Formats: sequence, structure tokens, C-alpha cells
Amino acid sequence: MRKIEHIGIAVKDLKTSNALFKRLLGSEHYKEEEVAGEGVNTSFFQVGETKIELLEASREDSPISKFIEKKSEGIHHIAFDVEDIHAEVLRLKAAGFEILNETPKDGADNKLVVFLHPRSTNGMLVELCQNKNN
Amino acid sequence: MRKIEHIGIAVKDLKTSNALFKRLLGSEHYKEEEVAGEGVNTSFFQVGETKIELLEASREDSPISKFIEKKSEGIHHIAFDVEDIHAEVLRLKAAGFEILNETPKDGADNKLVVFLHPRSTNGMLVELCQNKNN
Repeated sequence: MRKIEHIGIAVKDLKTSNALFKRLLGSEHYKEEEVAGEGVNTSFFQVGETKIELLEASREDSPISKFIEKKSEGIHHIAFDVEDIHAEVLRLKAAGFEILNETPKDGADNKLVVFLHPRSTNGMLVELCQNKNN
Repeated sequence: MRKIEHIGIAVKDLKTSNALFKRLLGSEHYKEEEVAGEGVNTSFFQVGETKIELLEASREDSPISKFIEKKSEGIHHIAFDVEDIHAEVLRLKAAGFEILNETPKDGADNKLVVFLHPRSTNGMLVELCQNKNN
């Protein structure tokens, strides 16, 4: 775990929240990207070495729609930057963590990503991400 | 907003969660500190430039007891490092954010801290912190 790669925030409307986070952070989002596999539209802000990733549902059965319906808008997950995602999955599995997808899948921003179940991580959804160019 | 200073995680039991986060992050917490004014015991892990701050209630009426009772263990707040907390409060107030304490108060780790109400910040509790030695 080299750094906090990003913090994912579930939002109802990307345009509204882009404006809100611009006022909060004092800077513009620098890109938007759809991740079709996850059913999300994303936008990114940079704060130091970490990104704030806003997540809007792109279809009705998106995990983000369910999250907002059950809880509300707010912090959805924390993503850690790792050098070797396969090695980290093995390490964390051996340490008793529940891996949601043992085979890394495509995430936003040219990453391979794996999620850990919040019931094994003190109630927080944890994402591991590795740059595909590593 | 210069960087994510820390991410605060509400936990039921600091000792249990210190062990869990050691397994997750692959490193030990480097200190513990009670913040009597907030009714919390804290412990800190370092990940890159950001800290993970675990928060355990130190008394029954602690905001952390209420948070866990209402929601569950999990991510409690995000704290941004700022150079001049008084200037940031003025800027954010003018931008329409709801400031919970306009006069900065003592936080853990030698900081002055101010909180913004989640209803003005997309459902996430935001903390601003400035080093007292700035």
C-alpha cells in the first residue's frame, strides 16, 4: 500500500457535484470517464498525491444507485495504490480478508482493480489499484 | 486544500482495529492519542502523505458512539490539510458551505480543526486542519 490512490464519493448528479467540489477544493475536475463495466460515470479532482473520484450511476442497476438508495450520497470507497495487485490479493487473502473479485478487473484511469468486502475491513469498502503500465 | 491530511474511521474497539489495519496496510500504527474534547481515542497509520486515523469512543455520549449506533463502523470523515484555516473558513462560508464550528478547535496531532456539515458537502463530513506550528 504505497499511497491513497483515490477516495470514491457516490453522487446523484455529476454536473451538480462537479460544481460543488470545485467550490470546496478550489480547483476544477481534470477529466471525466465512463466505466461501463461498473455502471458508473466518474470525474476526477487532484488533491496532493490523491484523487477525489466522483461516481454517478450510469444505469439503473448500478452499484452506485443501490448505495445512494440504501445510505445516501457520500463516501463510497477508499482505494490504495499497490505495486503488484496479484501479490497483494494473495497476501490479504492469507491474512483473512474477503476478496470480492480475485481476478483484477478494469477500473477507471487505466487501472486494474480488486475490491475487499467491507465486512472484513471495519465497514469500509476497500479497492486496490495497480497501474496497467506497471 | 494542499493534501488529504487523514481519513477518519469509526471503530468499536481500537485494539481490535489496530490489529486489523496492521494486517491490511502491512504496517503498525505509530501512535495513539486521546482527544478529550471530542470524546475519542485515536490511533494513526501512515500511507504515503496521508494518515489513517482510527476513532474509538472514549465516553458514552461521544459522536463516535452515535455514528456507530446509527450507521455502523466505517469511514467517518475526510480531513484536508490547509495552510490558513481562518482564511479557508471565510472562503468556504462565502461559497455557501455550512461551517459547524467557525472558531477552530483543538484536534489530534497538534492541529486546529474545523468541520463542515455533511448536508452541504455531498453527504461527507469534511474536516479542515492546520498545523498549530504554521
